[in-house]
Amino acid sequence: MSIRNLDFIFNPKRIAVIGASDDKSKVGYMVLRNLITTGFNGVVYPVNSQREAISGILAYPRVSALPRVPDLAVICTPSHTVPGLVRDCGEAGVRGLVILSAGFREGGQEGKDLEDQITVERKKFPNLRIIGPNCLGVIAPHVGLNASFAADTPRPGHIALISQSGALCTSLLDWAVQQQIGFSHFVSIGNMLDVGFGDLIDYFGEDPHTKSIILYVESITDARGFMSAARAFSRSKPIVAYKAGRFLESAHAAASHTGAMAGEDSVCNAAFERAGIERVYQMGTMFDCAELLAGQKLPRGPRLAIVTNAGGPGVMATDSLIEQRGVLARLGDGSLAKLSEVLPPWWSHGNPVDVLGDAGPERFAQALAIVLADEHVDAVLVVLTPQ
Amino acid sequence: MSIRNLDFIFNPKRIAVIGASDDKSKVGYMVLRNLITTGFNGVVYPVNSQREAISGILAYPRVSALPRVPDLAVICTPSHTVPGLVRDCGEAGVRGLVILSAGFREGGQEGKDLEDQITVERKKFPNLRIIGPNCLGVIAPHVGLNASFAADTPRPGHIALISQSGALCTSLLDWAVQQQIGFSHFVSIGNMLDVGFGDLIDYFGEDPHTKSIILYVESITDARGFMSAARAFSRSKPIVAYKAGRFLESAHAAASHTGAMAGEDSVCNAAFERAGIERVYQMGTMFDCAELLAGQKLPRGPRLAIVTNAGGPGVMATDSLIEQRGVLARLGDGSLAKLSEVLPPWWSHGNPVDVLGDAGPERFAQALAIVLADEHVDAVLVVLTPQ
Repeated sequence: MSIRNLDFIFNPKRIAVIGASDDKSKVGYMVLRNLITTGFNGVVYPVNSQREAISGILAYPRVSALPRVPDLAVICTPSHTVPGLVRDCGEAGVRGLVILSAGFREGGQEGKDLEDQITVERKKFPNLRIIGPNCLGVIAPHVGLNASFAADTPRPGHIALISQSGALCTSLLDWAVQQQIGFSHFVSIGNMLDVGFGDLIDYFGEDPHTKSIILYVESITDARGFMSAARAFSRSKPIVAYKAGRFLESAHAAASHTGAMAGEDSVCNAAFERAGIERVYQMGTMFDCAELLAGQKLPRGPRLAIVTNAGGPGVMATDSLIEQRGVLARLGDGSLAKLSEVLPPWWSHGNPVDVLGDAGPERFAQALAIVLADEHVDAVLVVLTPQ
Repeated sequence: MSIRNLDFIFNPKRIAVIGASDDKSKVGYMVLRNLITTGFNGVVYPVNSQREAISGILAYPRVSALPRVPDLAVICTPSHTVPGLVRDCGEAGVRGLVILSAGFREGGQEGKDLEDQITVERKKFPNLRIIGPNCLGVIAPHVGLNASFAADTPRPGHIALISQSGALCTSLLDWAVQQQIGFSHFVSIGNMLDVGFGDLIDYFGEDPHTKSIILYVESITDARGFMSAARAFSRSKPIVAYKAGRFLESAHAAASHTGAMAGEDSVCNAAFERAGIERVYQMGTMFDCAELLAGQKLPRGPRLAIVTNAGGPGVMATDSLIEQRGVLARLGDGSLAKLSEVLPPWWSHGNPVDVLGDAGPERFAQALAIVLADEHVDAVLVVLTPQ
């Protein structure tokens, strides 16, 4: 049920942009520009009560005036207008909402009251699902959908990203576009008034384009839904999570920023482990994971062989491997004998396979071929140090 | 005493290159080229028994035939010739040796025997100090000295690097030259037959050019000397260390590569802490430390203010700060009042100071000036996320 409804958000045929604008400094400008320049195959309706057209595209004064009912409406107007617009959309039969507007729970009591009003409206329309408010939007490159005010669109790929921080999305996008990292979905979930991590993990778990899921988490609101979704899919699709607000000081900072209160960190750790989620502790590691998951098949098992032309980096790689609970592959006797045939006599005679500093491409390739063919090896790391 | 002798290695007037060569694939070519192209102010004597000149420079058949006694001799000949050359140098009155040749302890019993022979020779000449064997060499940019076979020379700076892995030196140099990171000294210490970490920390501790020391350690041979040197200087000059071989598997890999047996990791941790050495666990962190130490003054204390235009990255920075035992500065009431004057009403009202996503350069600068002037703040981290 929840999954069918999310299709209206991630694979819509008709989209209304409420608050579409010609002013380049406005979110409503960025969203419309992204929707009409990314190859989206459906119809985009600008909604603006003041203007006949936006960017030359015929605009409509309100949702009820649209020629057909949109599947998705993206709301970019000031926070105080949002509860009324949610009601309008619900009454018109809209099934998905992405609310980009800020000025809700994160801004104090007045904003929290507005958010409560939205919840009241939402409950009148059981089929209506909402992402946000206070978010960057959603991107689904496989269907040419960029319903966000991000400056870029990533290429289609196999990673689904779900982030509670819009700014992190922007940084990650910047980098991903440069590195040509692709995504199946890119979701900034903001204040999670309705759709949360659990719903999205459920949805991406079933999505054929998605092969792995990366999360930036500040707080989990629906712990039960989150856990059951993660446990259901983490065996077949790796889930990697960065959990912010690990300490009292940072949890406090998180609360002042999304209005979310982060939980006890050790509880979170235990939950992640139980759910099969791999936790990372640095943004750089998150990026590394994204790159690796985007470019590599999953290895058959944990046994890694290291082929290196330098001893020190081989030791460092071994340190990292063992720290991350990997296993240093024990090469078969046949492989050791073959390696001794192609390598100089003082090679390391074990794993890491040190092909020595004077190795040319041929010696490297010969050693690599032998190691790759070894049935005791699940994956190979090649370390090439300039010498 | 040990320090005066090391001056002959790091600030020599005359240098012999034993095994100097015109063959570009040879170490003896690289070393001579580095010595005569880096601005060294003294005399370089090529020593080669077969040739009248190397690279057009008059060569001498042996050390005893040189016009004056060199302070330093760099040996690049095959390992079996080295014990005899050490004796020749000692008898000629040479005070410093850098032995680049490989094929010693790291290569098995035969090499170990050769190393023992060198030790026998060395003991006949109490004033002779040796770096190596099996190393990349030494670089002292402030005196234009590059007695190594590295492909690059870093610019003069304030970091002393001491590495037990030559390959790591090469990688670090590659990066440092690109990033314009400067060094006071860059030392690959190889098998540490004589000069070890303790001697060098003592020496760089007294060196006016050196403001911080970075170590790549696989094994400590002279634990007592190491500890007393580190404790003497770590308060005034930060010492950062990467210790490889943390686990049984990686310690084994280290042993097969430098012939050094790494110790129990927890012992090492305790020793580092007692000596005031900051331990890092990733090569990337080592590079970050180098960059920070090269470009920044040391902060007065641990209290950090964070000025950010995005909440999520502010939370992540706080996480890292607390994890690294830093302190989140508590801003003074005066600063909070001033910040409220220049920032929008829904700013974070605390540290991290979230100047919000729409902040331009002016708002950033105003907030930064207020925070920098706060007496409760020792250092400021600015996070600028593209929005």
